[in-house]
Amino acid sequence: SNTVRVAVLPGDGIGTEVTEATLAVLEPLAKRHGIGIATETLPAGAFHYQATGDGFPEASFRAAAAADAILLGAMGWPGIRQADGTEIAPQLDLRFRLGLYAGVRPVRAIPGVPVALADPRARGIDLVLIRESTEGLFHSRGKGLVTEELAEETLRITRTVTEKLSRFAFRLAQRRSAQRGRPGKVTLVDKANVFRAFAFMRSVFDGVAAEFPGVGSGHHYVDAMALDLVRKPWEFDVLPTENMFGDILSDLGAGLVGGMGFSPSADIGDEHAVFQPAHGTAPDIAGQGIANPTATLLSAAMMLDWLASRGAGQGFADAATELEGAVDRAFAAGLRTADIGGRDGTVATAKAVLARIGG
Amino acid sequence: SNTVRVAVLPGDGIGTEVTEATLAVLEPLAKRHGIGIATETLPAGAFHYQATGDGFPEASFRAAAAADAILLGAMGWPGIRQADGTEIAPQLDLRFRLGLYAGVRPVRAIPGVPVALADPRARGIDLVLIRESTEGLFHSRGKGLVTEELAEETLRITRTVTEKLSRFAFRLAQRRSAQRGRPGKVTLVDKANVFRAFAFMRSVFDGVAAEFPGVGSGHHYVDAMALDLVRKPWEFDVLPTENMFGDILSDLGAGLVGGMGFSPSADIGDEHAVFQPAHGTAPDIAGQGIANPTATLLSAAMMLDWLASRGAGQGFADAATELEGAVDRAFAAGLRTADIGGRDGTVATAKAVLARIGG
Ligand SMILES: CC(C)[C@H](C(=O)O)[C@@H](O)C(=O)O
Ligand SMILES: CC(C)[C@H](C(=O)O)[C@@H](O)C(=O)O
Repeated sequence: SNTVRVAVLPGDGIGTEVTEATLAVLEPLAKRHGIGIATETLPAGAFHYQATGDGFPEASFRAAAAADAILLGAMGWPGIRQADGTEIAPQLDLRFRLGLYAGVRPVRAIPGVPVALADPRARGIDLVLIRESTEGLFHSRGKGLVTEELAEETLRITRTVTEKLSRFAFRLAQRRSAQRGRPGKVTLVDKANVFRAFAFMRSVFDGVAAEFPGVGSGHHYVDAMALDLVRKPWEFDVLPTENMFGDILSDLGAGLVGGMGFSPSADIGDEHAVFQPAHGTAPDIAGQGIANPTATLLSAAMMLDWLASRGAGQGFADAATELEGAVDRAFAAGLRTADIGGRDGTVATAKAVLARIGG
Repeated sequence: SNTVRVAVLPGDGIGTEVTEATLAVLEPLAKRHGIGIATETLPAGAFHYQATGDGFPEASFRAAAAADAILLGAMGWPGIRQADGTEIAPQLDLRFRLGLYAGVRPVRAIPGVPVALADPRARGIDLVLIRESTEGLFHSRGKGLVTEELAEETLRITRTVTEKLSRFAFRLAQRRSAQRGRPGKVTLVDKANVFRAFAFMRSVFDGVAAEFPGVGSGHHYVDAMALDLVRKPWEFDVLPTENMFGDILSDLGAGLVGGMGFSPSADIGDEHAVFQPAHGTAPDIAGQGIANPTATLLSAAMMLDWLASRGAGQGFADAATELEGAVDRAFAAGLRTADIGGRDGTVATAKAVLARIGG
C-alpha cells in the first residue's frame, strides 16, 4: 500500500505548536490525494532531558530510524544544557548517526511576505543552500580539546561525503532546471584561497561537476558569498557548502525572505531524512499560539516530495506541490503571521493554508 | 617632532589606484593640521610574486614593521597562486607576524550612499565588527593536513588573545559611547551551543566583561547574528568574534552599507597596525580609474585616529575627524561612485572629498 510511517519529534517550545498545526493540515491533504500517512510521536528534547536525564532516548532514535521519514519541530531551551555547556540537540545526533549529509535549506521569497532588501529583484529570490551536515567543523562537536590556556576544534572534509554532497547538489539543480525551465547552476561556497581543506573540497567538487556537463558550475569564497547574498541573491541557484558556513549562510538567507518562520529545511542522507523548520523553540513566544507554522508546513511539503522520489507514489508528489502552492496562495491573499507584524496565529495560519487546498 | 612614518603597500590591481588617491588627500590634510606624514612605498603582492617568486620580500616586511603605521591597498590576483593553491596574501602575513589580533571593521551607513535594506532604520546602521585576526580557524592557514581521502584544519582559540580581543572591544565601546552619548554594548559572536572552544572563548570574554561594569555585554550565536544583521543591524554596537566568523560577517556588513568600496578596516595589535580597504584588487575594473577610494580614505582616517591614540598628537585626531566628516559631506552632497551606479571616478572622488576639507 502507499501508506508511509512518519516519526514525529515535536520537541520543545513552539516546536510542539507548529508540529501539531502541520499534522492538522497533513491529514485532510493525505485524504484528498489518497495517500496514507501514519504518524508516531516520539519524546526528545531539552524538557525531556530535564525530566529524565536523557535528551534523546535510544527508543526514540530507533523508532525514528525505522520510520520512512522524520518530522521534527524544534529542540533546545535556554538554561537546559549538557555538562560541557553545549545544547541538547537531538537534531544534530540524527544528522550524524543517520548520515544526513545534505542539509537542504531553500531560500525563496513567498508572494506577499515582505523581503528584507530594498531592490525589487529580491521578490525573485529562489535559491537553495545545501549545508553539508555530518562533518566540516561540526566533525569536532563534543570532541574539542580544552586546556587552561587554549581550546581547539578540528574541521574535517572527506572525499566520500564531498562527492555525495556535490552529486546531490547537481541532481537538485537538474531537477530545479526542469521545473523552472531555466539552466541550472551549482556554486560551491568555500575558502579555498586560504585553506588546503577547502582547496581539497573544491577539487573533489570539480571532479563531480565534470559528470554533469549540462549544469553550470562555479565557486565562490564564503566571505564574497555573504556579501553577494545581500547584494544580488536573485542570481544564485544551488549552493553547496561546508557545515559551519551553511549554518551561517542559511540563517542569512532566511533573513532575506521573512525570517526563520518561513524557512523550511530537510536533512537528507542516502536512506533517511529529517524535515524541520529552520527556527528554534522561541521561548519568548512559546505557549501563546502565535508561532508561525509556515516553515514546518513547507518542510512537510519537502517531506512529501522526498517520499515521492523514494517511490511512495505520485500522490505524494501532487500533495507536496499542492501544499506549497496553498502556502503561497494564502500569503498572496493577505495571510499575515505575527512575525511579520500580522495577527494570524498558529491555528489560523494552518486553517488559511488548508482552505487553499483542493480549492 | 610630530612626523610619523607610514609604510605604504599599494599591492595589486585597484590597490595601487585607491592608495594613490588617498595619499593625494592625506598630503594637504596633513599640511592643514600641521602634522607630518612621511610615506615610504614598499613592493609586495601577486604581481611581485610573479615577477620575483616572492610575494612579500623580507625587506618590505621589515620596513613595514619599523614604520609607525602601515597603509595597504589590496593584494592578490586570479591565476597567481602559491604552490598549494592558496592566495598571495601579505596582509595575512602581517596580521600573524605582527600580532594584529583586532581586525576592526566598521559597518556604518554613510549619508547619501544607498543601503541594501528596505527598512528605513537601516540608515542608522553604525556598528563595528572586531574580527580576531591571528588565530581561530586561520591558525591553520598553510598547516592543513591533506591526504587522498580527507583534509583537516584546526581552529584554535587562546585565552591570551581572547582576553586582548575582549579588552580591545570593551575599550572601543567605551570610546564610542562617549563620542555618541549613548550606552555602549559589546556582543561576543560565537557558537558556544555546539563547540567547547567557543564555550571557552565565551567564558574568557565574560571574565573580561566583569572588568567593564559600565559597558553592556552579551553573546549571540553566529548563525543568529547573520540573521539579525539582515533583520536589525541598527541594534548592535561592538561585535568581537572569531577570525573566520569575522571574515564572513564583515563582508555581510559591508553589503548592508554600499559594499566593499565603502568598508574600511584596521588590523591592530599592541604595537603595530595595518589600515586597508576591505575590498580586493578588482581585476574586472583595474586600470580604468573608476575604483571607489572611499574605503581607503576611511581607513586612512582610522590610521590617523590610531596614531593620535598612540601619542602622535591632537592634530592627528583632528585630521581623522575632518577626513571622515569630509567623506560624509561629499556623499551627502551628491558624490556618486561607479559601484553605486554613479559616474565619479577614483580621482574625482578624492577631489570631491578634498574639497570638503577645511571648508
Ligand atoms: C541548534 C543548533 C545546534 C543547530 C545547528 O547549529 O546546526 C541550528 O542552528 C541549525 O541550524 O539547525
Ligand atoms: C584575501 C583574504 C585572504 C582575506 C581574508 O580572508 O582574510 C580577505 O578576505 C580579508 O577579509 O581580509
